Amino acid sequence: MEAFSDGVIAIIITIMVLELRAPHDTSLAGLRPLLPVLGSYVMSFIYIGIYWSNHHHLLHVTEHIDGRALWANLHLLFWLSLVPFVTAWMGENHFSQWPVALYGSILLLAAIAYTILVRALLAAPGNELLASALGSDFKGKISMAIYAVAIPLAFVKPWLALAIYVVVAMMWLIPDRRIERRIS
Amino acid sequence: MEAFSDGVIAIIITIMVLELRAPHDTSLAGLRPLLPVLGSYVMSFIYIGIYWSNHHHLLHVTEHIDGRALWANLHLLFWLSLVPFVTAWMGENHFSQWPVALYGSILLLAAIAYTILVRALLAAPGNELLASALGSDFKGKISMAIYAVAIPLAFVKPWLALAIYVVVAMMWLIPDRRIERRIS
Amino acid sequence: MEAFSDGVIAIIITIMVLELRAPHDTSLAGLRPLLPVLGSYVMSFIYIGIYWSNHHHLLHVTEHIDGRALWANLHLLFWLSLVPFVTAWMGENHFSQWPVALYGSILLLAAIAYTILVRALLAAPGNELLASALGSDFKGKISMAIYAVAIPLAFVKPWLALAIYVVVAMMWLIPDRRIERRIS
Amino acid sequence: MEAFSDGVIAIIITIMVLELRAPHDTSLAGLRPLLPVLGSYVMSFIYIGIYWSNHHHLLHVTEHIDGRALWANLHLLFWLSLVPFVTAWMGENHFSQWPVALYGSILLLAAIAYTILVRALLAAPGNELLASALGSDFKGKISMAIYAVAIPLAFVKPWLALAIYVVVAMMWLIPDRRIERRIS
Repeated sequence: MEAFSDGVIAIIITIMVLELRAPHDTSLAGLRPLLPVLGSYVMSFIYIGIYWSNHHHLLHVTEHIDGRALWANLHLLFWLSLVPFVTAWMGENHFSQWPVALYGSILLLAAIAYTILVRALLAAPGNELLASALGSDFKGKISMAIYAVAIPLAFVKPWLALAIYVVVAMMWLIPDRRIERRIS
Repeated sequence: MEAFSDGVIAIIITIMVLELRAPHDTSLAGLRPLLPVLGSYVMSFIYIGIYWSNHHHLLHVTEHIDGRALWANLHLLFWLSLVPFVTAWMGENHFSQWPVALYGSILLLAAIAYTILVRALLAAPGNELLASALGSDFKGKISMAIYAVAIPLAFVKPWLALAIYVVVAMMWLIPDRRIERRIS
Repeated sequence: MEAFSDGVIAIIITIMVLELRAPHDTSLAGLRPLLPVLGSYVMSFIYIGIYWSNHHHLLHVTEHIDGRALWANLHLLFWLSLVPFVTAWMGENHFSQWPVALYGSILLLAAIAYTILVRALLAAPGNELLASALGSDFKGKISMAIYAVAIPLAFVKPWLALAIYVVVAMMWLIPDRRIERRIS
Repeated sequence: MEAFSDGVIAIIITIMVLELRAPHDTSLAGLRPLLPVLGSYVMSFIYIGIYWSNHHHLLHVTEHIDGRALWANLHLLFWLSLVPFVTAWMGENHFSQWPVALYGSILLLAAIAYTILVRALLAAPGNELLASALGSDFKGKISMAIYAVAIPLAFVKPWLALAIYVVVAMMWLIPDRRIERRIS
């Protein structure tokens, strides 16, 4: 399951760059309209990187995977697969209200899907190591609460919602030391 | 063989999302024309997920692969590789008659290819565990019969054919417990 | 090295399908212009499948890979990576002279690159099993000779050159029993 | 981590070929405008191949990967993921000043990212084999110095900068014998 998920995540993180279309203008000015697209790409690259990193750590301490966990995993990959679309919509429209709100919604849905996956893995027999390694998942819960606040804010000040997404990403860039301590 | 198949299936499931092109309209209304494309994508994502899951289970209990099984596998991947095309044709044309019928035909051809792959694996020497794990393959046979009924129905009521495809997908979302019981 | 090559070959075989663009016409007639593109895709799918299958068998009996073999492998992947381009050029232009000749040239260059890879692997120390498993490589030599004849024929009768490419593919569809016998 | 990186690098090296769009002109003249695009593709293919090869050797002698190394690796993949974009911009604009300078800048940033990755791996406990295998990394340092000279040259004579990029690639085509000697 990890090989397949790694493949899908690798493709998601890479096809987003196809939205960065080479301009016909060969001056530096020709790149200026691409800046929001690039900014949007950088944020999504980091978010997908965070998911890959956490997913990788998660499966590392998982010993048994059943049918339910398999579909919980595909459910997570589904929401992640929509990230290139919302990244493009947001970047090409200069971070306007609806695209920023939808971007946050996909982040929220992916976070919920990740929580469901963790629960499905915990429910599968023989994953006691995982249970003790994960603890209370404080970061996961707080992220979802923050997204839920940021999404409506996108309609007031899109840049404020964006700043919040960046803060959540920062919070996650620190890898999950609870698991890492166990597997190192 | 599993790594290569996983790679191809991971790419198939992900490139379908490239059909969801970011609209220039930044209001919620701008997303409305994308709804059938998204619906079509969701159905294909689930179908490809089912194939990946069953294929994964199948190769898990397979011990020997010969040249014939290798090509039976490529034959299955060929029909699956056409899924993004029929998904796009169906989604962009609001589920009209021919696209819905062709979508069902590709599902039928992929199902036939899967059956041929199972037979090729059973015919390879040393796969006795597989034979006992698979049993009668009732679900595979009934699916093909249902597709054969649904395809002509697409010309009468496309939505009826679609509903049937959804029912078959539901039937398969329950993973193949016969094999799972053996490998857990 | 095999994982990376499998990844590249999996992507090559799958991105070719992106050339099959969904038509706006929803009747069966809308698919007719796509028939040569589909035919071209089928042939390339089979050729890439043959390369994957032989490459997979080849690395299975290889024990040592040095820097030279690594670059011989990337050289093969380079020519294979041009297959989607020539497939599109040939399919979208109804198999006219230059595209058919260029398609054959890429097949010839890939075949030469495969031969160079085999030699690089044989030259690496510790690959004695490979040497005894490969034998004289009669099929490889005859294929290159046939391509060299077919390419100029493309300017007289493109369909004749195409028929020859099909014959060579047929010849290779039978997997390399010399190696298979050894590893089964 | 290697499987994911291999996947991303395999996709980067392959999607670049999507810029080689099949012309409608079926004569040899129809291919002429594609020559700079092809030349640009060949150079990037070789550069990505060099990164894959060195990355592969590097991880081969690495025994422990921590969170910092994981993100140093994603940072490298980020710059490599921009290679298809700069390749297209450079190839489609006949190697003019800004595209050639940006191409060199991405090469420089990828080289810096690679150095950071090596340092992160060396800093992780338990990688003593790596430290002794790597030595002084003379080639890495000289490459970065050369890029820093070539980038401003692109504004004087783009072809001179390009020639320098080719020379650096040549220098790297010889695989890293320091590591290879150890793992053979």
